[in-house]
Amino acid sequence: MSRKGHFNAAHRLNNPDWSEEKNIEIFGKCNNPNYHGHNYDVIVHVSGEVDPETGYVIDMKVLKEIMNEEVLDRYDHRNLNLDIEEFKTLNPTAENIVGVIWNRIKERLDNHLELTVTLYETERNYVEYSGK
Amino acid sequence: MSRKGHFNAAHRLNNPDWSEEKNIEIFGKCNNPNYHGHNYDVIVHVSGEVDPETGYVIDMKVLKEIMNEEVLDRYDHRNLNLDIEEFKTLNPTAENIVGVIWNRIKERLDNHLELTVTLYETERNYVEYSGK
Amino acid sequence: MSRKGHFNAAHRLNNPDWSEEKNIEIFGKCNNPNYHGHNYDVIVHVSGEVDPETGYVIDMKVLKEIMNEEVLDRYDHRNLNLDIEEFKTLNPTAENIVGVIWNRIKERLDNHLELTVTLYETERNYVEYSGK
Amino acid sequence: MSRKGHFNAAHRLNNPDWSEEKNIEIFGKCNNPNYHGHNYDVIVHVSGEVDPETGYVIDMKVLKEIMNEEVLDRYDHRNLNLDIEEFKTLNPTAENIVGVIWNRIKERLDNHLELTVTLYETERNYVEYSGK
Amino acid sequence: MSRKGHFNAAHRLNNPDWSEEKNIEIFGKCNNPNYHGHNYDVIVHVSGEVDPETGYVIDMKVLKEIMNEEVLDRYDHRNLNLDIEEFKTLNPTAENIVGVIWNRIKERLDNHLELTVTLYETERNYVEYSGK
Amino acid sequence: MSRKGHFNAAHRLNNPDWSEEKNIEIFGKCNNPNYHGHNYDVIVHVSGEVDPETGYVIDMKVLKEIMNEEVLDRYDHRNLNLDIEEFKTLNPTAENIVGVIWNRIKERLDNHLELTVTLYETERNYVEYSGK
Repeated sequence: MSRKGHFNAAHRLNNPDWSEEKNIEIFGKCNNPNYHGHNYDVIVHVSGEVDPETGYVIDMKVLKEIMNEEVLDRYDHRNLNLDIEEFKTLNPTAENIVGVIWNRIKERLDNHLELTVTLYETERNYVEYSGK
Repeated sequence: MSRKGHFNAAHRLNNPDWSEEKNIEIFGKCNNPNYHGHNYDVIVHVSGEVDPETGYVIDMKVLKEIMNEEVLDRYDHRNLNLDIEEFKTLNPTAENIVGVIWNRIKERLDNHLELTVTLYETERNYVEYSGK
Repeated sequence: MSRKGHFNAAHRLNNPDWSEEKNIEIFGKCNNPNYHGHNYDVIVHVSGEVDPETGYVIDMKVLKEIMNEEVLDRYDHRNLNLDIEEFKTLNPTAENIVGVIWNRIKERLDNHLELTVTLYETERNYVEYSGK
Repeated sequence: MSRKGHFNAAHRLNNPDWSEEKNIEIFGKCNNPNYHGHNYDVIVHVSGEVDPETGYVIDMKVLKEIMNEEVLDRYDHRNLNLDIEEFKTLNPTAENIVGVIWNRIKERLDNHLELTVTLYETERNYVEYSGK
Repeated sequence: MSRKGHFNAAHRLNNPDWSEEKNIEIFGKCNNPNYHGHNYDVIVHVSGEVDPETGYVIDMKVLKEIMNEEVLDRYDHRNLNLDIEEFKTLNPTAENIVGVIWNRIKERLDNHLELTVTLYETERNYVEYSGK
Repeated sequence: MSRKGHFNAAHRLNNPDWSEEKNIEIFGKCNNPNYHGHNYDVIVHVSGEVDPETGYVIDMKVLKEIMNEEVLDRYDHRNLNLDIEEFKTLNPTAENIVGVIWNRIKERLDNHLELTVTLYETERNYVEYSGK
């Protein structure tokens, strides 16, 4: 069972251990110190046994609530680098964002459920993470 | 090789072993006794060896016919609960519909082919089934 | 300024002044007495002067509220023919639905704003109405 | 003839003549002082006579160049409020951005061509401008 | 009322009155003598009065038939320059194709109906024609 | 990390070891000797460890360059059967094209990265290949 959500956020890519020159060389225009932004789409896939009483793997209303609380309400219309605790020290690449989201949602699910999170940074670029 | 089709159908979610209250609590507005409906999108993925003579895993025209006969012609513009034999006793959640579709198509394919079926109930909610 | 919403509903097409045969001839499988359903997408376009203080034609949060109250909360997960007052006597074709939606939203807007409503019954079929 | 492009940018909505309280009341989370961001999609529609020698209204390669120079290269991966001259004093609402883009492209086109610009701020919210 | 269809075809752009050099200069890689191809999407918009008996502007089943006969069955899996009579002497630019389609469909409609045809050559490039 | 690109090309399906009749029987209108065409979408998925210094699995700018050099610049606006060396003797079915693309890109990637390529021939038909 999968569900899609989205949030709009500003970010920049930067490694504070590197010189300004190296940051520009590696991250290009994504290093703009004034930030740029994206409409992120996030797809949460939960798999497991179908409950014979409900016919559900997971109640979509419950999954929607978890996504809102852990991801959408927290990140929407925010600056990831400045406003979000976890990206104050972690570079907000798509790979790192998807890992953080995966951890936050995984803790809220029953243990027997498997989780994959896909994050679209743009329509053309996206990452997927399943916990390993 | 994958192919996408769609059908428009009415349904409601209900467990006849439960009280009306419990059905409303669990299924919410999906329990509406007058039904609601969806434009379902179904994606059928068939994988296996590429036939060296045709360059095909499966002839797309054949797969299209199987999908039409087993799914699209049977479900399109129908009420799943009232018009479709298999959902008279099985709750038509996305999880249960995808399982029924998978079984119907699997029987029509050569044994060496692997099958995955993905069903979109809305653009934001979908399920996937590969036979286990 | 335009905004998109959607609702899932069941309906059937039927003219009570005609025989069953004529209804089937004209409306085909859309006449199924057990109903079928759609994921309707509705796009509301509002045009007019840009307010120099806000830079807005209309505040998107206000338009979102109007759409929810007049359309999405009323029609979502309903049977249009049975549950919705206005379609008890009016055949719920896309053309008639879009006219009803246009009237409900127009009454909520400032008089100087122009309104167009587009309704997608499926990804391939849609209608547009601007009040004439 | 129409062509689609996109750019990713950060922005915030703010009216410097208002108190902080009024800005928050009107612009809500779009007023976040640390900015948020979007993947903007821009569609440029050019209409006019078809040239009998080429069969073109306008050469798509020429239109693509104009869009890149006037819009995409200038706005992509930028902070609209801080990095772009025209939005240092003009609130970057979708309505104001589309007006600026329209003016920049119009100056580059032959006088007999008509221009409409559509700007999607998100998949669900967009504005259209034709010069009046 | 609008309906969407698509066809897959090969074509090349060429003006036989010009030198090879001029054709390459103007049409670039679209002039490739071995042809290239597209998945064309065509959207047919028909507007007019809603018939009070049916609630339809035009019966979608009828429009679908007209589109299949006049456009989709004739152009799908064809080479526009070699296989289609009307493009043997007319350069198959998107502008010229949309004009031909408009004429073919217009002749099949009741006189009081207005027609607009939109043709997508790619997801990013499209043309629209309303008969003037 | 995944990235999407597209190219427009002409092709036909044909097995030179078969009679004309057998080719028509098996490949239907895809056998048209004058070719037809598609807007191919190609999605390249690369997976592996996230580099702790950059937060990247692979630099998207590098992957974009590889895709342009190995696939998009080579195939766009070409006739696959006539203009592309590898399909002069190999039938350009979606299955065969995706295999060729996978091999070309795999050679350019670091050995520890895993690669999947998905090729959409139309919005409804696509193939996926991961190297086995």
